[in-house]
Formats: sequence, structure tokens, C-alpha cells
Amino acid sequence: MRRWHNPQAVSFAALRQRFREGSDTPRDFLERCIATLQSREPIVRAWVCLDLEAARRAADASTARYRAGRPLSPVDGCPIGVKDIIGTADLPTQMNSPAFAGWHGGYDAAPVHALRTGGAVIVGKTVTTEFAVGYSGPTTNAFDPQRTPGGSSSGSAAAVGSGMVPVALGTQTQGSTIRPAAYNGAVGYKPTLGQLPLGGVHPLSATLDHLGVIGATLDDVWAVASQTSLAVGSPGHAVLPGAGAWAPTPVKPRRLIHLHTRGWAEVDADTAAEFASVRAALREHGVQVVDRATDPRIDALERDLDDWLDDGLDILAYEMRWPYEAYVQRHGEVIGERIRGFVERARTITPDRYAGLLSRREAMRQAVREAAAGADALITLSASGVAPPGHAHTGSRTFLAYWSGLGFPTFSLPLLSVGGLPLGVQWMGVDGQDGALAATANWAMRTLA
Amino acid sequence: MRRWHNPQAVSFAALRQRFREGSDTPRDFLERCIATLQSREPIVRAWVCLDLEAARRAADASTARYRAGRPLSPVDGCPIGVKDIIGTADLPTQMNSPAFAGWHGGYDAAPVHALRTGGAVIVGKTVTTEFAVGYSGPTTNAFDPQRTPGGSSSGSAAAVGSGMVPVALGTQTQGSTIRPAAYNGAVGYKPTLGQLPLGGVHPLSATLDHLGVIGATLDDVWAVASQTSLAVGSPGHAVLPGAGAWAPTPVKPRRLIHLHTRGWAEVDADTAAEFASVRAALREHGVQVVDRATDPRIDALERDLDDWLDDGLDILAYEMRWPYEAYVQRHGEVIGERIRGFVERARTITPDRYAGLLSRREAMRQAVREAAAGADALITLSASGVAPPGHAHTGSRTFLAYWSGLGFPTFSLPLLSVGGLPLGVQWMGVDGQDGALAATANWAMRTLA
Repeated sequence: MRRWHNPQAVSFAALRQRFREGSDTPRDFLERCIATLQSREPIVRAWVCLDLEAARRAADASTARYRAGRPLSPVDGCPIGVKDIIGTADLPTQMNSPAFAGWHGGYDAAPVHALRTGGAVIVGKTVTTEFAVGYSGPTTNAFDPQRTPGGSSSGSAAAVGSGMVPVALGTQTQGSTIRPAAYNGAVGYKPTLGQLPLGGVHPLSATLDHLGVIGATLDDVWAVASQTSLAVGSPGHAVLPGAGAWAPTPVKPRRLIHLHTRGWAEVDADTAAEFASVRAALREHGVQVVDRATDPRIDALERDLDDWLDDGLDILAYEMRWPYEAYVQRHGEVIGERIRGFVERARTITPDRYAGLLSRREAMRQAVREAAAGADALITLSASGVAPPGHAHTGSRTFLAYWSGLGFPTFSLPLLSVGGLPLGVQWMGVDGQDGALAATANWAMRTLA
Repeated sequence: MRRWHNPQAVSFAALRQRFREGSDTPRDFLERCIATLQSREPIVRAWVCLDLEAARRAADASTARYRAGRPLSPVDGCPIGVKDIIGTADLPTQMNSPAFAGWHGGYDAAPVHALRTGGAVIVGKTVTTEFAVGYSGPTTNAFDPQRTPGGSSSGSAAAVGSGMVPVALGTQTQGSTIRPAAYNGAVGYKPTLGQLPLGGVHPLSATLDHLGVIGATLDDVWAVASQTSLAVGSPGHAVLPGAGAWAPTPVKPRRLIHLHTRGWAEVDADTAAEFASVRAALREHGVQVVDRATDPRIDALERDLDDWLDDGLDILAYEMRWPYEAYVQRHGEVIGERIRGFVERARTITPDRYAGLLSRREAMRQAVREAAAGADALITLSASGVAPPGHAHTGSRTFLAYWSGLGFPTFSLPLLSVGGLPLGVQWMGVDGQDGALAATANWAMRTLA
């Protein structure tokens, strides 16, 4: 069985050997990326700003290091896009908000510093929705300009999906990495909460905010995540399990839990059929896939998850009081309606209610850990369908919000195609198991893609 | 027994009733603070920048609210100093570093927003040591200009100790709130890690950084901490236990553990005698005070704490890789020698070593929780002696670093005087018990001060 493959995406990881051998160079690779970027950008509109001259200088320095046999890290020379809520020393960070037009923090966010330390090439800043939660930017889908790229890491996903860069940094608070990755045929990775650093990333909600990585392949994603963890790390967290130049050695899962959840009610027949074909392929490979139809404990877990899901919106609203209440006070209707709505919603949440939300979340985390104990991963769709037409809305959050709320790791694997458009299988684990999850995800990519 | 009292400090909490009655106003109070400030500042040098006109406007607005019988919160009208690593929308945040000369983040840090929301009056930014860990600023001690004010919250403590403002915000990573509070005759409070918000505060180490509050009285400190928690809160934490307009109702402790630790070797005879007189006073009031001489489990705990103490320096160094490695790369020797030393030290710490540091810290936290289970608080000195002469060094960190490393709450209570200079009793609890700790601290202040 041959599944969907993104013909546009370009991998960096696969080229490192050629750079070492001298049959290709980071500068040549960058120029190919720039050529794609310049050809596609008038329609895709993934970028807020670029510094191609700085990128070329960085690529030249990388080229020299490979020539000398001394690359700094597995991401040395890798062109990278940076979501425009992630601080950069040399470029402004503007949050897709007029309130931050031209704003410079003046220093690199932790993941940007980590990647530069490893020799990566920062190409520019990618379009985000307003503060990663409000109105959409101008980006279009890498496969159909009439459709949303998804959000909030819109530009990062479209840039990767269209082959402008092999990897881009995003963030996820509800669905902002996994959803756009899926809509643009890229691999997405949202780690365990706190596993990758968020220093210098503009905040929404510390309980829900994650750094995200979107890449052409799992190897690209993993090398970038690993470098971020190794060079800077995340306070209070040991290094990313399985960190390295390549995704962890593939491990065939024995047992997977297919979670339908209430998101399944949003799924059209073609998408459901496509997912069913993945389940069939897994079975052919001897992987057991269980679900709510066969296991009443999974059915009970899904009911609990569904009942709990919208707690996340209250946690988000409560934690958005800072800084968004201040932004609304200062900038009024320059701040978009959705954000103003969250600030209003926060006023209805008492401290006791918030304490209850935190307790309930902890209980839900424990319940999922227990349910997942006998499985290698949980799987579901990365979104309820392919990217919908239009640009105002970035797609449903339902399938994404569970794992964002739990703070557990998840990948979007671009294994599905519906009507010629990409979609992802979401490959989900429990906290701290990012490395083991990447190993079974790697098996799935190699076996099913 | 009548213990030491700071004749310079001015309380705000005590005036709220007069503001309500109309016999005093926030504007009049602010003018008295400004008069003290203008008289003392040429010597004390607590401030980096002031915006007295903005403060006067805010005080006038507060005055009008009291007249209308509608103050916004228990800190409405309270003049506040803000340590210059804590972001402010209207004033620059310069970290006592030329690398940040004139730097504006452009928005209020979480605690500043919370206080403004409650009607507090931001007077200006107070002197910090370089990035709260490097070289000292120009501030002198509020009681002797030949002596250090302590650090790193130097200006905040000196401003409160000299009566320029009733409360100021600080931070503590090693000893930066409790030590300067003690040296300047103020009350200091370092909460449970994460209990008060750090959003918009320039980071050193997320495992060790705490917001700190320094005030003229425990009530002032508690009202400001409470407003910060109620108006913004800290992500992932329920509201401050016992939050309110006044410090929690005094509770007489039954049993206290006096921790000597290796810090005691630094203590001179006069300071030890002064602390002994506090122990005697506690006994007179029927409070049991136990220590390593009488309880071998305390002796064992102290050995463990002492053996563990310097782990904190490695955690700090490792977590300082971001952003300080980038600052050193960019600004070279503009960044002070101590910070460059930490960045160098970080290179010697492997990810495995860091993981070990985190595990050992968790074990130490659990050991202290178990040891503290039968006591209402642990007590020791807030510093090994009064403020030492000179300005280059801000005093020993030994007595402070234990509770910073554990992330447990602690107060400095200005109950001691040695040679006419102030010093504090450190009143320490375990995580999440800030409210109960404040109640016994309040008893100590009312009974012993």
C-alpha cells in the first residue's frame, strides 16, 4: 500500500551526508529554498519578513564548516522559519497585531538561540494569527490557495508544506501546530508540556502553551527539536528523551488505541474511509487497534474527555488576563474581537473555579495515563477533515484540544489524502514519553507512507 | 520585650481607613513619600527612573475613588517601586546593563498589571544588580550609606527601608528579596515557586526565580501579594492561600524548627546573641523551638541541605544558557564577569548532570516537607549578619539559597538589630503553605516586634 506523499516538501536531514561529502552545500540548498519561496510566496504569503542576506551569510558560514568537516550540530545549515510570536534578535516580532507593529524584543527566544547555536539558518518570520489565537493572517494553504492554511502557525506550516523551508517553529495552545501541519502535508510535533523551551515566546496560557515544530519529515522535526533541547533545554525538564540527529529507531507498535471522541461527529465519509484504510493497513502489519466499540473503558474515557474538553477554554481565558487584559485596556478594538471575548470570559471565572479547572485537568491527565498504559500510542485524525475553504477560520479545534489541554505529546503524520488534499494521522502519547512515541511514529511513517 | 522597629518605613495598609474617612488622601500620602524620596535619594540612590507626574495622576484618580467610596482594591493608591528587571509599559526596563540601555518591552509585567488594575501607583523603577545576578548598582543601605543595601533587589529594599514607598516589587533567585529586605529593615516575602506571577519579568532560572515583595509591614506585603494573585494569578496555581487586604489572622505557632545550617559558621557573636534572644522570647510565649542539638533528625536534615546547597549554582548556570549565552555572544564583556562565569560553568554541565540535579532537588523538597510536618515554621537568620560595609558585594547568599532552591515560601521579619543596624528573622514554610506561614509570621510580628 502506498499512501500520500507531499511532492512539494523538502527535507534537510537527508542532505547532511551530501554536505559532508561536498556534493551539495547548505548555500546551494538555501538558494533552492529561496527559489521556491520566491515562486510560491506571492500566493502562499507565508512570511511576515525575511532577511535573505543574513540567511545567505549564515548558509555560507555553514558551508565552510561542512567543508572543514566540523558542522556544529545536525541542524547546521538548516533553513528555518520562525513563527512571528517567537522573539528574534535581528527581526521584529509583530504578533500579527497592529499593537506590535515594528516591535523588537531585541533578543532571540530560547529555541531560536538554540538553533542558531547549532548553525541553523534563520530565514525569516512566518505569519501567525493575531497573538496565535485571534484573527487570521494573509497566508493561504500550500495545496489550494482558496483554503485556509490552518492556524495559528499558518505561515510555518504553509512554508514547509510548499517547500520553502524544511522546518519551521510554531506553537500550540489549542491546535496551532498539529492542525496547520496536517492541512499543509507536513509533519507536526507538539511535545510534552514544557519539554521544549518557550523563553522569549509571547504567551497565551502557560498551562496550555507548547513550542511546536513543523517539518518536511519526522527526521527534520526531530533534529530541530533535539537541538533545541540539547543546546538550551527547558527549565525543570531533563533533555528530550531520544534526542538525536535522526528520529528514534522505528519501533513497531503492538497495540494502538483509536480515539474517536466527539470530534468524530464532524468527520465526513471520505475522511472516515481514509482513516479506516490506515487502520486496515495497521492490522495488516499485525498491529492491534482497539477503540470504544470494542473496549468499554475506552468508551468511558472518551466520555470523560469530551465532558472535560471545554475546560480548556476557561483555563485559556483565565490565564490570558495577563497580558491581554492590559492590551485591551491600552489598545481597545485594535485587539481583535476573539481576544476581547476571552478577556471578557475571564471576568466570569472565579479563583475557585480556576482551582477546580486545574484539579480536574490533573485528574484527566491521570486517567489518560492509566488508559494508555497498555498501548504504544493513541491515534486519531489531526483535524476533522482537510483544510476548509476560506481564510477567516483556521479549522476546527476539536481533535487538537484534548492533547493540548493534557500537555501530552502528539505528532501529525501526513499519511492521508482526501480529494487530493493532505490530512494527518495524529499520533499521541503521554507526558515524558516523547522519545518512545517518536519511535512508533517513525515506524508508521516508514511503513505506511 | 520590645524588639527593633524601623523608624523610617511608612505603611500604606494602616492608612486605608483614613482614606475612606477622608482624613487623608492617596495624593497627600504620595506627596509625603515623594518628599522623603527627594530628601533621601541623593544618598540612597534607590531609583533608576521615576515618573512622578504619572504617579500623581494615578494618586489623584485613587483619591477620587476613595471619595466616591469605591476604591478598586486594598492596594488602591499604594505607591509602589518596581525592580528594573520587571517590565513596565510606560518606563524602560534596563536590567542595570548597558546591553539594555533604554530598552522598552512596551507592556506591563503580570504583577505590575495586577497592581495597576487594583489602583496602585507605580512610582518608578528601582535599582537591581546586573540582570539580578551580576555586578551591583549605585544603591546604598537605608541605614548606613557606607554599607551595601544587599541585592539583587537593592533599590526596592532601600526605597522601602528609607520610607520612600511602602512596598516595592523584587525577585529572588538565590537571596535577592529576603537579604536586602533584612539589611534595610523591611519585611520581605518570597512565595512558593510559581505562586506569584513572573510573566514579563526578565528571567534567570525558571526553577529558581520567584517574584518577591518587600514592604514596610507584613500587611503591606500581603495586600500587594494578594492583589497580584487575585487580579492576574499565576498559571497553574490556585490563588494565594489566605489572600486578602490584611495579613492572615495571627496564629501562635506551637513548634518551630531552628535551622542553623552551615550558614551559622558565618554568624558573629552579637548576631547569634540577638537571635538567641528571639528564641528566648518565643519560649517565654510558650513556643517550642527545636534544633539540631536536640533532634538528630534535624541534624541529619541540615547535613543533607548543606551537602545539596551548591547544586543550586549548577541549576542556575544551566538554565542561564538562555538568554545569557546569547547576550555574551552578542555583547561580549559588556556583560559582567559573574554572568560570563555562569555561562562558562554551564558548558561543564551535561544534560545527565542537569537531570540529576532536578531529581536531587525533588528528593530534598520531599525530605524538607517530611521534616517540617510537625512544625508550624522553620526559622533562621535572614542573612549571616547585618549589611557588610562596601558596595561591590551584596552579602552572603548562604542563609537564603536553601529556600530559593527548594521553591518554598519564606519571610524576612525585621525583628533584629545588631549594632544599630537591622537584620531579619527568616520564617520559612513548605510549598503551598504561604497562608498558614503568613499567619504565624503575623503572630511573631505582633508579639515580638
